[in-house]
Amino acid sequence: MITHAATAAARDRIAAAFSPELIGRLGHALAETMQAHFQTVNRGEGNVLNWNVPSVNVRLAHEHLSHKPVNVDPARSEFAAEIEDRFRSLVSTILARSNNLHHPHYIGHQVPASSPIAALFDAVGSATNQVMAIYEMGPWASAVERSVVEAVGEQLGMSKGTFAGLITHGGSLANLTGLLTARNVCLAQSWESGVARPGRPPVMIVHADAHYGITRSAGILGLGTHQVIRAPLDHRRRMDPRGLDQLLTEYRDTSTQIVAVAACACATPIGAFDPLPDIVEVCRKHDVWLHVDAAHGGAAAFSDKYGHLVDGLAEADSIVCDAHKMMFVPALCAFVFYRNPAHRFEAFRQDAPYLFDPSTPGETSDFDSGLMTIECTKRAAAYGLWGLWSMFGRQLFADMVDTTFDLGRRFAEMLNAEPDFECLHEPQCNIVVFRYIPDELRDAPPSQIGEFNRQVRRQLIESGEFYIVQTNINGVGALRVTIINPLTTEQHLSELLVALRRVGNSIDQT
Amino acid sequence: MITHAATAAARDRIAAAFSPELIGRLGHALAETMQAHFQTVNRGEGNVLNWNVPSVNVRLAHEHLSHKPVNVDPARSEFAAEIEDRFRSLVSTILARSNNLHHPHYIGHQVPASSPIAALFDAVGSATNQVMAIYEMGPWASAVERSVVEAVGEQLGMSKGTFAGLITHGGSLANLTGLLTARNVCLAQSWESGVARPGRPPVMIVHADAHYGITRSAGILGLGTHQVIRAPLDHRRRMDPRGLDQLLTEYRDTSTQIVAVAACACATPIGAFDPLPDIVEVCRKHDVWLHVDAAHGGAAAFSDKYGHLVDGLAEADSIVCDAHKMMFVPALCAFVFYRNPAHRFEAFRQDAPYLFDPSTPGETSDFDSGLMTIECTKRAAAYGLWGLWSMFGRQLFADMVDTTFDLGRRFAEMLNAEPDFECLHEPQCNIVVFRYIPDELRDAPPSQIGEFNRQVRRQLIESGEFYIVQTNINGVGALRVTIINPLTTEQHLSELLVALRRVGNSIDQT
Repeated sequence: MITHAATAAARDRIAAAFSPELIGRLGHALAETMQAHFQTVNRGEGNVLNWNVPSVNVRLAHEHLSHKPVNVDPARSEFAAEIEDRFRSLVSTILARSNNLHHPHYIGHQVPASSPIAALFDAVGSATNQVMAIYEMGPWASAVERSVVEAVGEQLGMSKGTFAGLITHGGSLANLTGLLTARNVCLAQSWESGVARPGRPPVMIVHADAHYGITRSAGILGLGTHQVIRAPLDHRRRMDPRGLDQLLTEYRDTSTQIVAVAACACATPIGAFDPLPDIVEVCRKHDVWLHVDAAHGGAAAFSDKYGHLVDGLAEADSIVCDAHKMMFVPALCAFVFYRNPAHRFEAFRQDAPYLFDPSTPGETSDFDSGLMTIECTKRAAAYGLWGLWSMFGRQLFADMVDTTFDLGRRFAEMLNAEPDFECLHEPQCNIVVFRYIPDELRDAPPSQIGEFNRQVRRQLIESGEFYIVQTNINGVGALRVTIINPLTTEQHLSELLVALRRVGNSIDQT
Repeated sequence: MITHAATAAARDRIAAAFSPELIGRLGHALAETMQAHFQTVNRGEGNVLNWNVPSVNVRLAHEHLSHKPVNVDPARSEFAAEIEDRFRSLVSTILARSNNLHHPHYIGHQVPASSPIAALFDAVGSATNQVMAIYEMGPWASAVERSVVEAVGEQLGMSKGTFAGLITHGGSLANLTGLLTARNVCLAQSWESGVARPGRPPVMIVHADAHYGITRSAGILGLGTHQVIRAPLDHRRRMDPRGLDQLLTEYRDTSTQIVAVAACACATPIGAFDPLPDIVEVCRKHDVWLHVDAAHGGAAAFSDKYGHLVDGLAEADSIVCDAHKMMFVPALCAFVFYRNPAHRFEAFRQDAPYLFDPSTPGETSDFDSGLMTIECTKRAAAYGLWGLWSMFGRQLFADMVDTTFDLGRRFAEMLNAEPDFECLHEPQCNIVVFRYIPDELRDAPPSQIGEFNRQVRRQLIESGEFYIVQTNINGVGALRVTIINPLTTEQHLSELLVALRRVGNSIDQT
C-alpha cells in the first residue's frame, strides 16, 4: 500500500496556499494597496515608466524567488501577519517597477489604461480558475463569452442570430484564427493535406501598413511571408480600392489563388481607417474572402460620432476586434467574428475523446469553445468586459471612444499651431504621429531629424515623465502617441510639448 | 476647433470606472466575498458543477448586459453604495453558476484548483494592465517572466545560461510555437517561401495519444493533419522507442523530411510518461527534432519522488510545460523551452517599426518577448507563479505533485480492491481511468458498458455532487479523473465510489 507521504510541513504549505482566511486577509491588503496606488497614479504623481535595465530587474526578480520562504506553521502566532508582510512587499515591488498606464502622461502603445473595475471581475475568474474549451468546465464563462460575442457583434452592425464569434488571447491570435479559416475555405483540403498544391503559390493581399501579426500569419500558416502582397495606399495611408481591384484582377488573370484580402480599421502606424464599403464591393466582385483587422478601431461602432469610420465592417467575412484596446478592459480579450456562422468550425477539427463527449446533447456541444479556438484551456477572458458593461451600460464604451478620439484630433490642432512641431497626418482617431523639429534642425536631412526624435523619446521615457512611442514613416523616425487613457486631458498634452522641447534642448545636436 | 464633447454624464461614467475610491471599496467587497466562497467550497459544501443548459445561462448573461446601468452621478449620496450593490450582485451571479474547482469533489480535467493567492498576484497585473511584447511596456512583467523561465528550466534539468524560453497563453499555443520552430528549422525557408516543396510531403511523428493540439498544429502550419504519423505505443500506452526507430528509418529511407517527433510527459488519456532517455537517443541517431509535450507532467521535476518520470526531458529540442496545470496557478501560464537558445528567434520574424525600436540598446531588445511569441500584447502571465514561489518557495510545487500523484496511485489500489470497479491501467501520476461495472453488466458487450459509464457520469456531474470526466479507451467509453485539487483526500475518493454506485443503480439498464 502506498502511504500518503505528505509531511506536516507540506500539509501546512498547501493549507496556506489555499486558505480562505488568508485569501480574505490578503485580498483586503490588496484592495487597500490598489486604492492608494491609483490615488497617486491617476493624479499624475510619480513616474509613468519606472525604467530600469533588464539585467537589474531580472536579478531582483530572481532574488525574490530565492528568498527564504515564509514559515507556514499555523501554530505560530505571527504566521498570518508574516505572510501578509511578504505579500505586501512583493506587491509593492511589482508596483514600484511597472509602467503606470493609469498615469495621465501615459500616451503610448495601443494598450489602454484599463478600468480596474473590469480587473476585479477578471480576478473572480482567476481566483476560481473558470476556464473553457468545453461548456461544462466553465458554464458561466462560456455563457458570458457568448453573450458579449452577440452584443459586440450586433454593435458592429451584424444582424442578431446571423453570425458567429469567439474570444481569444489577443489580436495576433485573433488575426491568425480568422486567416486560418480563410485559408481552409480558400484552399480546400489544406487542413488535412497541407497547403502545397500544383500551380502558382497562393497569395494573401494586405494593407501595406498591416500589423506584423498579419504577415506572420502567412508564415505560420505555411503560405510564406513572401506570398504577402501589399495593396497600395492612398495619400492618407488607407487601402486604395481601385489599386486593390487592379491587384485582384492581375492575380485572377494568372490563376493565382487569393487566400484573403486583409484590410484595417484602423492600421497601426497612423491609425488610418480603410474605406470598407468600397473594399467590400471589390472583394465581392472578385469573390475573395475579406478579413478586417479592427482590433483597435472596431469599438468606434459604439460611438454616434465616430461609428461611420467602421461603416461596412459588418460585411467582412472575418473581423477582429480587441476589447483590450478601445473597450478599456485589461489584456487579453480579442474577438473574432464570422459573418457566416458555419465558418466557425472551419479553422480546426480534432478528435479528443477525453474532452469532447460524443454523448453530449447537441445544443451543449455547440457551446464547446475549444472547437473554435486555438486555446484548449481558455481563461474566462470576457468577465471584465461583461462586468463593466453590466454595471455601466454600453454608453461607457462610446464615452471612452469619443473622449480619446476627440482628444487625438485636438492634439493634431495643437501640434499644427506650433512652429517647431510637425503633425504628419490628419488623425482619424486617437493615434497621432508627429516630429519635434527645433529651429536648428529645420534644414537637417530627414534621417537626422528622425534620429533626433528617437533620442528625445528614449530620454523622455526613461526619465519617467511621459510614456510615448516611436515609429518610422517612409523610413524616417517619428514620435507616435495613442491617447488611450481617458484621464489624459488637453493640459497633459500641452505638458508633453513642453517636456519634448526641454529634453530636446538638453541633447547635444552637434 | 474641435470641442471636447464629453457630457457631464460621460465624465461621471469614466470617473466611476477609474475611481480609486471605488476600486478600493469594491476590492474589499470582493475580498470578503471570496473568503466566504472558499470557506464553503473548500469544505465541500454545495455543488461542484452548477449545471444549467447553455441557453438558460446565455439568456441570463444577456439580461445583465441589458439592465439599466447604475446612476453614476457622484452628487447622489447613494452613488457608491448602489455601485457596490450591483458589483456584489454580479459577482454572486458568477459564483452561483460556476464549476467549483476548489470543491474537493472536483476531480476532473487537467485544470487545477489553483491557489487563490496566485490569483491575487495575477490581479495586480490585470488592474495595472502590465503587458509585454516590448520590454519597456512591461519592464517588471518581462523580468518576472525571464526569472521564472530560468528557474523552471533549471528545475527541468537544463543548465543555467544554456537554454531559452518563453511564456504563452496555454499548452496548445505552446505546442504550436515549439512545432513552428521545428518546422522552420527543418524546412529551410518555409517561413518566407511556404512549406510547399518538391518530393514527398514532410511528416510529423507523434505519440499516438498526443493531445489534439499537436495534430492541430500540423493543420495550422500548412503540413496537413494527414501528415501526422502516430508512433506505436507499448502496453502502458507509452511511445515505444524501438517502434519509433523503425518508423524513422522507414521515412529516412524514402527521403521524407521529418519535421519533428512529438513525445509526451505525460499523454492525456491515461497519463503515460514516455521513456524519454531512449527516445532522445533514437531522435539523435536520426538527427530529428524532439519536441516533448510535458504540459501536465513537467512539474514532476520538482519532486524528489516523481522526478524520475521526466528524466531525459532536458535533452529535448523543445519542451512545453504548463504552470497552470501541475504548478497550480490559474490559467494561463504555459512555458516553451528551447535547449538551443538560438532557436528562440526561429519561430517568427517581423518588421514593426512602431514597436521594435531599432535604436533600443542591444541588451534590452533581447527582452522584447514579442519576438518570440505569437502574442504581441501579452498579459503578465507569470505574476501568479512568481508570487506563489516567492512566498512559499519551490517546495510547495513538490508538495502538490507528491500529494496528488500519491493519491492517484492510491485511488488505483482502491479501485482494484472493489469487484465492481475496473481500473484500466497502473497510474503513473494523478490521472486514473476506470469503469464502473455492476454485476448485471459484467457480461455485457463493451460498448454497452462504455455507454452506461457515460450515462452515469453525465447524471453525476449534472447533480453537482462530483465533477469527473470521460474518455475512450480502445473505442470504449470510460471514466477518467485527474486528482488536481490538493484538498481532495482518500475519503473523498471513497465517496466517489459510493456516488457512482448510487447513480448507476438509479439508471435503468434494460
